Amino acid sequence: METQKSLKVIPLGGLGEIGKNITAIEYEEEIIVIDCGVSFPDEEMYGVDLVIPDITYLKNNAKKVKGVFLTHGHEDHIGSVPFILKQLNVPIYGTKLTLGLIENKLREHNMLQYCELHIVNAGETIELLNFKIEFIRVTHSIADSCAIVIHSPIGVILHTGDFKIDYTPIDGLVMDLERISNLGKDGVLLLMADSTNVEREGHSISEKTIGKTLTRIFSSAEGRVIVATFASNIHRIQQIVDACVRYNRKIVFIGRSMDNISQVAMDLGYLHIPEDYIIDVDEMHNYENKDITIITTGSQGEPMAGLARMAFATHRKITIEPDDLFIISASPIPGNEKLISRVINELFKRGAEVIYEDLEEVHVSGHAYQEELKLIHALVHPKYFMPVHGEFRHLRKHANLAQKLGMKGKDIFIMETGQVLELTKDEAKITGRVHTGSVFVDGLGVGDVGSIVLRDRKHLAEDGMLTVVVTLERESYSIIAGPDIITRGFVYAKESDVLINEVKEIVRTELNKCLENKVIEWNVLKFNMKKSVERYLYEKTNRRPIILPIIMEI
Amino acid sequence: METQKSLKVIPLGGLGEIGKNITAIEYEEEIIVIDCGVSFPDEEMYGVDLVIPDITYLKNNAKKVKGVFLTHGHEDHIGSVPFILKQLNVPIYGTKLTLGLIENKLREHNMLQYCELHIVNAGETIELLNFKIEFIRVTHSIADSCAIVIHSPIGVILHTGDFKIDYTPIDGLVMDLERISNLGKDGVLLLMADSTNVEREGHSISEKTIGKTLTRIFSSAEGRVIVATFASNIHRIQQIVDACVRYNRKIVFIGRSMDNISQVAMDLGYLHIPEDYIIDVDEMHNYENKDITIITTGSQGEPMAGLARMAFATHRKITIEPDDLFIISASPIPGNEKLISRVINELFKRGAEVIYEDLEEVHVSGHAYQEELKLIHALVHPKYFMPVHGEFRHLRKHANLAQKLGMKGKDIFIMETGQVLELTKDEAKITGRVHTGSVFVDGLGVGDVGSIVLRDRKHLAEDGMLTVVVTLERESYSIIAGPDIITRGFVYAKESDVLINEVKEIVRTELNKCLENKVIEWNVLKFNMKKSVERYLYEKTNRRPIILPIIMEI
Repeated sequence: METQKSLKVIPLGGLGEIGKNITAIEYEEEIIVIDCGVSFPDEEMYGVDLVIPDITYLKNNAKKVKGVFLTHGHEDHIGSVPFILKQLNVPIYGTKLTLGLIENKLREHNMLQYCELHIVNAGETIELLNFKIEFIRVTHSIADSCAIVIHSPIGVILHTGDFKIDYTPIDGLVMDLERISNLGKDGVLLLMADSTNVEREGHSISEKTIGKTLTRIFSSAEGRVIVATFASNIHRIQQIVDACVRYNRKIVFIGRSMDNISQVAMDLGYLHIPEDYIIDVDEMHNYENKDITIITTGSQGEPMAGLARMAFATHRKITIEPDDLFIISASPIPGNEKLISRVINELFKRGAEVIYEDLEEVHVSGHAYQEELKLIHALVHPKYFMPVHGEFRHLRKHANLAQKLGMKGKDIFIMETGQVLELTKDEAKITGRVHTGSVFVDGLGVGDVGSIVLRDRKHLAEDGMLTVVVTLERESYSIIAGPDIITRGFVYAKESDVLINEVKEIVRTELNKCLENKVIEWNVLKFNMKKSVERYLYEKTNRRPIILPIIMEI
Repeated sequence: METQKSLKVIPLGGLGEIGKNITAIEYEEEIIVIDCGVSFPDEEMYGVDLVIPDITYLKNNAKKVKGVFLTHGHEDHIGSVPFILKQLNVPIYGTKLTLGLIENKLREHNMLQYCELHIVNAGETIELLNFKIEFIRVTHSIADSCAIVIHSPIGVILHTGDFKIDYTPIDGLVMDLERISNLGKDGVLLLMADSTNVEREGHSISEKTIGKTLTRIFSSAEGRVIVATFASNIHRIQQIVDACVRYNRKIVFIGRSMDNISQVAMDLGYLHIPEDYIIDVDEMHNYENKDITIITTGSQGEPMAGLARMAFATHRKITIEPDDLFIISASPIPGNEKLISRVINELFKRGAEVIYEDLEEVHVSGHAYQEELKLIHALVHPKYFMPVHGEFRHLRKHANLAQKLGMKGKDIFIMETGQVLELTKDEAKITGRVHTGSVFVDGLGVGDVGSIVLRDRKHLAEDGMLTVVVTLERESYSIIAGPDIITRGFVYAKESDVLINEVKEIVRTELNKCLENKVIEWNVLKFNMKKSVERYLYEKTNRRPIILPIIMEI
């Protein structure tokens, strides 16, 4: 019986966390995946560059996986695509800009020629075996964003992706509320909706307001204007460009992602810059400061990006001048506040003027506020609801919002990554859990840094390490070289001669005690050395460096 | 000629940074010090517990230093007192509550009996040789806060300390604007004023509004109410207590600083709690949940404090129950946003309700906003102005504010820590710089962790370390034990057998090459080992662990 069959919705990342969005939707012998993002390491993940989802579940069901459908081109939704495609051969579907950005990534990974990419326009529907997957235009802080609708034998699932409701978007392409309203009229089984800004009251502000602020600022700028923003925010960049054209300023792009993304956006027709306006950084000296605008990466204060390099005078080609006006057209992502603040301080110190969000309206959010979320709930009035995209607090508040609008608590599912929501036409329940998790990318290594390595890095970061080496002669039960001691990150060596000599003495005493008793099992010797040194150092310094005892035997 | 003599104002900490406030004021053979604070390590200062000012300048002029005058009892103004008193024997002056908190600290350091503490009431003046030091009442987020006026032969200096203008303070003791106005009338040579909130428009909100919010929240709470706030915010705690008394809830204090500070505040008459209202955590089981309020530390999400322990279920005595209502009555200090967010998520996950600043007015700032700063400038209209307490961006904005009110740029001094402002009756200029800096406290060590140790800790945190040990026999030019390899924080050992074996082979080859050529200088051997291993690992992993080559020789 058709109605007994069930559909599974399995978030493999992105719930209870910011980023790493990926959801599997499974029916019979078919799985489709929505989004495939990365997240960025938190401060405890020492040395980690990127975090990608563990897709063991998809690999174990590789034959079923028919496609990855991308809502939009932000890193937290597409960043893992190259890593996933190395493990799974599957076609990728997305809008033109989204796939343009993916192509760039795949080219860098030298794998573009092996991958199957399908452009889908907003409004189009892809038909697979059991699923019809429809792309619906939404507005967001990157162009060409879509919600995704899965028409399944069990019912309709609407996944909003990231969105805000901007009635006056820069490209004139408004969110397709009519289609969403019609879906609601025909009946939506499950709504999955963006929770990022559920704590903000009211309605988000249109991207267009930024243009007005920029025009006003540009109109009175006497030197160079340097704007830092997200490279992916094409509409923001378009507005900066428009201000440049209006005030006849040449444009210099700084930063790898700024170069890459603006090029893709221009090639694909999302970003329009009159031909002779872009100049190379090396051509700047041909123009007066008042005729130059620099658009740079680094709006989060990232130490290696363009803005920070300018601020700390480590940029090879750009030196701050007294009439420079910096605009930081972005909000700090939580965790980046201090980095940005440091850059702002440094810019001021070098005599530049700096305009940032606390002072002027130079940034708006790309995520729906409470009143926009309410509109979507009211139009869709789904049978079941799963808040997505957010930490637990956001999911909980979004659930509360849905309840205030009339949904019953039992029809709302605050899920954890890995949990399985099983739906029939008449029922939804959490029925299990699949293996999932985070895989760390560090340099060229994917997955070779795990919790033990991170625990050690944390320990090393806090108290440093101390290596004790001795060479023993087995036959004579005697120390014939050492103990030698090397420390890093523990105490400044010059000031710690006494301490180190004392440690040597302790090791010598401890070893001789063992050797006299003819104990020469390495493990016992090492354990005793370690414990006695640990105890002494903690008593003297209140610190617990990692102690590495090494015994060489001849 | 008297008028030729000059007065020096030397900030030894607290400018261009948040915290570690300390300023020396010097005239002839006399120095007084205003405040003596700590700052907290930023995320690059791995393993550091506290940062205190380098007071080399004061030690080099020890005979001149006549007293330390404290504006109020916050850590960033008094935290270094015990460390300074270990290096300098000098009397401490402050209000009763401030000194009560200092006594606690000195007792913990076992040095209370050696120290000279003088209580000064707001309104009183201390006379030294050349200086008269007057304490003027201000309002702030800790009781008994004062501005300090230095009457010197050169002129009057007004240092506001931290302040806001609260017309309805909880203790009824309003800021002495009349005295400040009179000082202005008689002429102030130099104003030093708090810049913390100079970016905020308008006027700060009175502490009293919190009481109303708390009363409303308490009135409908059905289970325990758990409030996290700063232990030093006595007035906040008084308002929580008042709500408890109104709704007949017993009070449990959790956290060492909460215990200590509330005790001092009660003993000295700053905090009033009806006798039978305080209960011990172990007595909670005698009461119903609706009759209990817990006041706890940890409002910044600190992992070891009460609130985080409750959230992560590691508190020995308090387990979260479903009808618990948590109130986080504090703002995140920049850098702590993620820690707090993690705690909030965890509380929600365990089923508790959580109210925080984004949702309700449960916190107000203790620092003056723009309109309050303007009032002070208007009343004082000093000859010279030095913005204090803030990062560079705040000092710059405060200077702009003063200019908008009519001061000339040349009369405003944005100083750096260590710079010397030299004043006569008719002139002020920056004339030099004294040695200053940060001293790190790590465990029992004060100053034994410096930039090299921190650089190593950062390196270890990012890429871990790898030790290579060999024992060589000098006579035969041969390896007789090893190479052995130990890594920590680099790669997970089980997955890296091949890599490690390859490293051993590289070391062996490299050493044999040297030994064959009879090269046995340790430095050369070590350098070659290190370089070849580094090169190989970077090629294979894109990481640069610290390589520690150790050669034992027999």
